[in-house]
Amino acid sequence: MKPKLIVLFFLLFACSAAFGQEKQNMTVVEKGLIKVSIMYPYAEGKTFNMEYYETKHMPMVASFLGSNLVKYTIEKGLANGIPNQPLPFMAIGIFYVKSLSDYQAAIGPHISAIRADFANYTNTTPVILVSEVVK
Amino acid sequence: MKPKLIVLFFLLFACSAAFGQEKQNMTVVEKGLIKVSIMYPYAEGKTFNMEYYETKHMPMVASFLGSNLVKYTIEKGLANGIPNQPLPFMAIGIFYVKSLSDYQAAIGPHISAIRADFANYTNTTPVILVSEVVK
Repeated sequence: MKPKLIVLFFLLFACSAAFGQEKQNMTVVEKGLIKVSIMYPYAEGKTFNMEYYETKHMPMVASFLGSNLVKYTIEKGLANGIPNQPLPFMAIGIFYVKSLSDYQAAIGPHISAIRADFANYTNTTPVILVSEVVK
Repeated sequence: MKPKLIVLFFLLFACSAAFGQEKQNMTVVEKGLIKVSIMYPYAEGKTFNMEYYETKHMPMVASFLGSNLVKYTIEKGLANGIPNQPLPFMAIGIFYVKSLSDYQAAIGPHISAIRADFANYTNTTPVILVSEVVK
């Protein structure tokens, strides 16, 4: 029996290790979720402080959303995909939520605080898109 | 020894089942990847055939990208996040790739075919953003 037990313990260990590793490298699938994308257009003279956005603004907004928030992402605009065209957006913050009405209800009471914080990291006015992930 | 063995088999089974389940519900983390977002602006009279886009256009483009493509997503624009403002984008297709130069090299030879296919699903001209996922 002993060797079999050892093999089993080893398999169990390997399985848990693989499971832990996968959890670290993966995140939830987005299909069916609602995306709220806050997109900051680029224009001459417009600025964006990514460090403040990533460490202060987005965590603050995320903290209002509770369990409705599945995840949030931040991206930095690099270039226009069409050569010789200006950068369309400097940055985009995206909240992936289960329910749009729950998102709106959670943001509502904090909207003034959220808007007042804009001046701390940008002088541009964001475009906000609500969309549904279909694939 | 028998009861211990049974417990171990049970644990092993539970662990593999959980692992399989997680794999199904999860996907790769995006941080550090390059996003190429093809964004279709909304305006009066502009149309977008999501079924064609999802079943024909995006799979065709994805097929050109090989192992550089980590994943692609499609979203359908629902509303402007600011009340009483028009929808900013009807749809967005996003390729998550490891390397922008590999993406450009792979797309280059097919660019005419890709552009010619636009007329099959939309009469709007997309905005294309290249960005880097920072969180």
